[in-house]
Amino acid sequence: MTRIVVDAMGSDDHPTPDIEGSLSAAREYGVEIVLVGDEALINPVLTTRQTSGISIRVVHAPEMLTMEDKGEELALKARHKDANNSMAIGIDLVKKGEADAFVTAGNTGAAMLTALFRLGRMRGVDRPALAPSFPTATGSSVVIDIGANPDCKPENLLQFAIMGSVYAEKVRGVKLPKVGLVSNGEEEGKGNELVRSTTPLLKKSELNYYGNVEGKEVIGGVVDVAVTDGFTGNVLLKTSEGVSSFIFAYLQDFLKDSSTKELQRILGSFQKHFSYEEYPGALVCGVDGIVIKCHGAASKKAMVNSIWEAVILVENRFLEKIKAEIL
Amino acid sequence: MTRIVVDAMGSDDHPTPDIEGSLSAAREYGVEIVLVGDEALINPVLTTRQTSGISIRVVHAPEMLTMEDKGEELALKARHKDANNSMAIGIDLVKKGEADAFVTAGNTGAAMLTALFRLGRMRGVDRPALAPSFPTATGSSVVIDIGANPDCKPENLLQFAIMGSVYAEKVRGVKLPKVGLVSNGEEEGKGNELVRSTTPLLKKSELNYYGNVEGKEVIGGVVDVAVTDGFTGNVLLKTSEGVSSFIFAYLQDFLKDSSTKELQRILGSFQKHFSYEEYPGALVCGVDGIVIKCHGAASKKAMVNSIWEAVILVENRFLEKIKAEIL
Repeated sequence: MTRIVVDAMGSDDHPTPDIEGSLSAAREYGVEIVLVGDEALINPVLTTRQTSGISIRVVHAPEMLTMEDKGEELALKARHKDANNSMAIGIDLVKKGEADAFVTAGNTGAAMLTALFRLGRMRGVDRPALAPSFPTATGSSVVIDIGANPDCKPENLLQFAIMGSVYAEKVRGVKLPKVGLVSNGEEEGKGNELVRSTTPLLKKSELNYYGNVEGKEVIGGVVDVAVTDGFTGNVLLKTSEGVSSFIFAYLQDFLKDSSTKELQRILGSFQKHFSYEEYPGALVCGVDGIVIKCHGAASKKAMVNSIWEAVILVENRFLEKIKAEIL
Repeated sequence: MTRIVVDAMGSDDHPTPDIEGSLSAAREYGVEIVLVGDEALINPVLTTRQTSGISIRVVHAPEMLTMEDKGEELALKARHKDANNSMAIGIDLVKKGEADAFVTAGNTGAAMLTALFRLGRMRGVDRPALAPSFPTATGSSVVIDIGANPDCKPENLLQFAIMGSVYAEKVRGVKLPKVGLVSNGEEEGKGNELVRSTTPLLKKSELNYYGNVEGKEVIGGVVDVAVTDGFTGNVLLKTSEGVSSFIFAYLQDFLKDSSTKELQRILGSFQKHFSYEEYPGALVCGVDGIVIKCHGAASKKAMVNSIWEAVILVENRFLEKIKAEIL
């Protein structure tokens, strides 16, 4: 039975959405869930819920990392052997082989650092990267990196491309995922120095390399994997979020006084396509273990989706596959 | 009387939208228009239109630059003393003081290079940049650079900030424009190496420096000027275009079978807010003359708006103001 550790202290409204998502996932997917966090907060929620017939247990962690944790102090907490925050304890369970994957909706930097220090980098990966599912016109694709590495070298981008490709294949079942390099123009030769130096590496690789893609093509779903440095990836992600939430806010506001309930319903369901809370979290790619970081405003649904993503990664032997490809 | 040169060969459907926009602008704003391009194409259109009472004349240019022109060959055409394409001849009129500004909907790279070679850089500006009006939640703001310079140094970004600030002030009448630096996080210290090295320059400047802005804040209209390298700016612009056109295409498609004509009308007018064809073109900032580059798919309306932008820049002595600020 696949065992997923869930950080009960992760989401903005923790622990309720984190616990409810875990319960649904345990029931729906038949996996074992280990909730890690403050028992005094977890147990009162858990006892009021139906837990018979599912496999769920609690591991106590007296502390938690928050959005306030940053810099050197965060590094110390992420690294310390006896750290007793929920991320450290949860990730240690994966490290010791007592669980298969870790899912959290907490502080992104904290999750990245804790994973990096406790699981270590995967052999052949210089820089772990953050790879979310990104909504596109045709469904979703993998954008890697979206913030972990603001400055990159061509070799980093090649490694992101390999990890992203395996991810798209293993999680989405895409055969020979199309890999694009985010640039300011589609033609070869367009790009900044980083893009122009990365192109030959991608062409030489065994990836299904598509070429340069502009922001428009990423949104259009032209490629399965969009490779970029974490600075550009973050601007791409945040711009996309900004435009879609502005448009939907405007339209919802306009429609709220209208009698067209049907329209509101359709708009609402379309809006979900752009709602990052509905998507499984971002995979922390390149650490030696499976760690998924959900949106902080994660709903129960988002937690369920993220746990499912973790299950697929575990059951499809994602780590082994990456290790074979990256060397 | 302000004299604007319009490239009649610029837009995808040239010369009709270019000429029609010119006629409207001449009539509406009382400016003189010089149409430059192939007489054999311009005159047949012009003779069927009402031109009495407006000031418009044609300067023949037997050749034109197209999207096919690139690389070294383009550089030669842009530079050659006797070049007789419409961009070169049009920009030379500005250079010689026979006109005040040049507007084109043609090839962006061609417009940049021709402006650079024939007008020269403005003193104090190392790299000319492209600055469009960018639709935001609160109206529009200036994003500089959106593609001319994929790799930048901190000094380039400082110069972009100064030019963008003067532009926002002169064209939009914004007092003390708020200047933001596009980054992957709002807190100071977030950013790639370029952003982190640019921050102290902006803080030391006399600009109304706001700090870092994420893609979301740019779309939200939090700042009047968003400063970025041309690579990131292009990804921001194209992502925004991609998301909005995808959403509108979906909604229009859904609404086309609906009986709610009113809704279609409202959606259509909101969509215009995101339609880059409706906006005045991007200013080529940093060359010693006023050059505006419209979207290739420019409509008559876009040409009129661009010509109006040129008029405002001329009448507000934009060049003099920048020269005073940048030294």
